[in-house]
Amino acid sequence: MKIQLVGLGNVGKELCELIEEKRELLNSLGTNIVVVSISDSKGTAVAQNGLKLKEVVNYKRLGWQGFRNYKSGYGALDAIRDVESDVVIELTSSTPNGEPGLSIIEAALKKRKHVVTSNKGPLVVAYKNLIKLAEKNNVKLLYEATVAAHLPVFCMLDSCFKADKLLTVQAILNATTNFIIGEMEAGKSFQKALNEAIGAGWAEANYSDDVDGIDAARKVVILANALFEADAKLEDVKIEGIRNVGPMIEEARVSNRKVKLICEILKEKGRLKMSVAPKLVSLDDSFATVNHGNMAAKFRFETSKEVFVTAHFTSPKQTAYAVLNDLTKIAL
Amino acid sequence: MKIQLVGLGNVGKELCELIEEKRELLNSLGTNIVVVSISDSKGTAVAQNGLKLKEVVNYKRLGWQGFRNYKSGYGALDAIRDVESDVVIELTSSTPNGEPGLSIIEAALKKRKHVVTSNKGPLVVAYKNLIKLAEKNNVKLLYEATVAAHLPVFCMLDSCFKADKLLTVQAILNATTNFIIGEMEAGKSFQKALNEAIGAGWAEANYSDDVDGIDAARKVVILANALFEADAKLEDVKIEGIRNVGPMIEEARVSNRKVKLICEILKEKGRLKMSVAPKLVSLDDSFATVNHGNMAAKFRFETSKEVFVTAHFTSPKQTAYAVLNDLTKIAL
Repeated sequence: MKIQLVGLGNVGKELCELIEEKRELLNSLGTNIVVVSISDSKGTAVAQNGLKLKEVVNYKRLGWQGFRNYKSGYGALDAIRDVESDVVIELTSSTPNGEPGLSIIEAALKKRKHVVTSNKGPLVVAYKNLIKLAEKNNVKLLYEATVAAHLPVFCMLDSCFKADKLLTVQAILNATTNFIIGEMEAGKSFQKALNEAIGAGWAEANYSDDVDGIDAARKVVILANALFEADAKLEDVKIEGIRNVGPMIEEARVSNRKVKLICEILKEKGRLKMSVAPKLVSLDDSFATVNHGNMAAKFRFETSKEVFVTAHFTSPKQTAYAVLNDLTKIAL
Repeated sequence: MKIQLVGLGNVGKELCELIEEKRELLNSLGTNIVVVSISDSKGTAVAQNGLKLKEVVNYKRLGWQGFRNYKSGYGALDAIRDVESDVVIELTSSTPNGEPGLSIIEAALKKRKHVVTSNKGPLVVAYKNLIKLAEKNNVKLLYEATVAAHLPVFCMLDSCFKADKLLTVQAILNATTNFIIGEMEAGKSFQKALNEAIGAGWAEANYSDDVDGIDAARKVVILANALFEADAKLEDVKIEGIRNVGPMIEEARVSNRKVKLICEILKEKGRLKMSVAPKLVSLDDSFATVNHGNMAAKFRFETSKEVFVTAHFTSPKQTAYAVLNDLTKIAL
């Protein structure tokens, strides 16, 4: 399986390591992964017979100095057009207008290449169009990593609950806010907890998307579109962040409950109702045990009733795992 | 897809209803289910162009009186031999020696028919042989319903964690004992809690397999064989039931913890170590929120680390759902 990788940040580097680590296991499943190009924002490393992934990651660290295979100024779109491949893995950063990921995914699908992405941006602004484009070109577009890393939301629903009817989704989908709320429940102020989240690598310096609930809402849009065949936009989600969560945390303390930033999708009178808001949960609710930067989802089905899944989230390697699992779905 | 059903107890009846309920959904997925025979312990109803499932369930209730399609004395093995079909669904009761399910599954696989079963017995005594027989005949043997009903243990691992390495499994796999322990934690004696479990339909009159941990241990054997490619037998599992759990429940109460009957599979020095025993769990452990007759599993993987899944278990309809989902895996 010939693969083109676009984006060599944390997830991209971890994916390169993971492909090497799991090579034997993947071979035993009948999948041989050959990475024929890797693009960053400034150029592309190309090798039709396969790049050595450790070498590429090392040269990237050195600014590509002396790496023969790297063509500066030759971008992802050039490589997708010129280099023969089966799959494009799109791992660029999420942006409000979806670019550059959106153009990269469109170009790949039009060239009849399967796409695996970890990038929320393109799916938030153009989910329906991209799915149609994939169908038209008879290729797959997979995106497990966009929502809660390796928590197997799309995979589990598609594989294990296809014959059931999904009624509602509730979920904890933002690691940063879950970490901050936990620190506040342990007695810290919002500001102190936020600083710890930044120090621990959970929150980025630009933390507004996390604490204001925007990142979680983007995931809600993707879930709604993918699981309920909706055509939802970010502005359809009612969003409340955690900047003013202090009093609710005090209320939780005195009533022996917990606070969680809960994403919710439900149907009311035939219409999808989507929200992100801090909520009180009782201690015997599975959500109460979702601590640190962990994530979780609770599904309610017509026949299977309630199914809850949670995963420990510790590093970008797990996001890379979600990408790798999507790859196996294309290969096998 | 032509199906032969063997066993028309609770799960069988629920499956018949479920197939009718989900017929439209299944059709939209491209699956048309035609049930060509249904066997109980005394005979078989046959109709090559498809039985009317509601009619069959009604006639079964009436002891088959006046049902033209029912041949008394014509058993499941006769029907598997004579009637053309794609899949045999084996739903007879679990027994220590695996019969009559074992012979039925073997006969079906030898006739190159796929098999879906909800019956632990045959898998506990002959998992490896049955899998080999299925492979030899190029058909599938699926058994999601044997362990924790619709909790998607096998489906999730096979679909979403194929590229990862499973290290350990911990699980709550027996609804009856989970219900009894919960009632004891609420202050009842073991005997009173057991009587309530029987009254509520969780425990059967012959409750020893449940309270002594044998039912849970059977599921451990199936998990070990299926997930770790072991050749485990029931006698390899260290088993402790809940008859003497009183003092531990008191210990949990004073230390603000919970008691759960935990199944465990882990590797020690290259060997599988399997056990069933009541254990203390802290309130921030996801297991602590698994109440009533619900079940749960916690997996630890090399890369994905900890993934926990739990499902509400309310009726045999959910076991029937697990069978139906296995059917879609054969059909699609």
